Amino acid sequence: MDQTKTAPHFKLIFATGNLHKLHEVKFILKEYPLIIEQRPLKGIEIQSNDLGEVAIASVLGAVQRSGAPIFVEDTGLFVEALKGFPGVFASYTYQTLGTTGLLKLLDGETNRRAVFKSAVAYCAPHNRPACFRGEVSGRISRQARGVHGFGFDAVFEPDPGGGQTFGEMGIDEKNRWSHRACAVRRFAAWLLTDGID
Amino acid sequence: MDQTKTAPHFKLIFATGNLHKLHEVKFILKEYPLIIEQRPLKGIEIQSNDLGEVAIASVLGAVQRSGAPIFVEDTGLFVEALKGFPGVFASYTYQTLGTTGLLKLLDGETNRRAVFKSAVAYCAPHNRPACFRGEVSGRISRQARGVHGFGFDAVFEPDPGGGQTFGEMGIDEKNRWSHRACAVRRFAAWLLTDGID
Repeated sequence: MDQTKTAPHFKLIFATGNLHKLHEVKFILKEYPLIIEQRPLKGIEIQSNDLGEVAIASVLGAVQRSGAPIFVEDTGLFVEALKGFPGVFASYTYQTLGTTGLLKLLDGETNRRAVFKSAVAYCAPHNRPACFRGEVSGRISRQARGVHGFGFDAVFEPDPGGGQTFGEMGIDEKNRWSHRACAVRRFAAWLLTDGID
Repeated sequence: MDQTKTAPHFKLIFATGNLHKLHEVKFILKEYPLIIEQRPLKGIEIQSNDLGEVAIASVLGAVQRSGAPIFVEDTGLFVEALKGFPGVFASYTYQTLGTTGLLKLLDGETNRRAVFKSAVAYCAPHNRPACFRGEVSGRISRQARGVHGFGFDAVFEPDPGGGQTFGEMGIDEKNRWSHRACAVRRFAAWLLTDGID
């Protein structure tokens, strides 16, 4: 990694109200010379099937009020047998139906294929936003397993995870495979080479 | 109704891509001296638990491109036993899970209470938007019944409907009770008394 252009401790704001997500993102970024400050000031969330559009609209709304470089992260879970449901509405669906509701919807369904996707959108004041994506394929388990992570982690078995759900993995192992870690690392790599002027 | 201020045929645009909805709204408004022109140019749809906010954001996005008075209508279905799910995401949920998915989620559930809500947002160029709401309480049926209407109509029994689902009602009867008819009539009454200068 070419760090010649980076300040020793570049500070940026992570706009989120989700402390689980904050913890996970900070853990991913601890390898990088970045200082992450959390603020619960996401912009509007739009309804779009494209996670990147959702993240960009959100960061554009937030950057006006931040006065500093800021990023957001949005997650979607796309279940094949449910025509992509819950998609970009994964968070709302988790809060209302929970893992129990998702498993009920897939009761008797043999096709358990699903994709977890992540989009990170970043914007510095008076600049254009940038977007970074990550995804991991896997399947929805027959029952919830594990106590780690958050959201639908306990019912998602990533293909490269040896049959474990994200909920059964420690944060180190989850970050080897996860959609979020992939998107966040792409963002950090870009930031430290091209993104900081 | 005081129609002294109204033009004989006031023309306004209904921004929707849903032809079922267009048909229903035109049917409701045929009693009024209005000409409705459909265009598929809704603005962005935001994620919000408040249907009025969703509709207002949408009409504000659309009016900039319309150059004419314009309205949108947004619908939400709030199921008590599912913590309000699908809420403002009723349309997306219908497209992915359908009535079958909703019934599956309520399988074995005795509390079938639900509320259908509608919000109409209207805006004339260079004016502030106005919002009108309607709602009807009812219950989710045990199975889909009826061929009329659209969306979750076949599984929603409005309280004042004598046990019939909206799907079993002709358009006249549905419009006696429906959330959408209530919101649209409030909008029309306002438009013809205070809204047209």
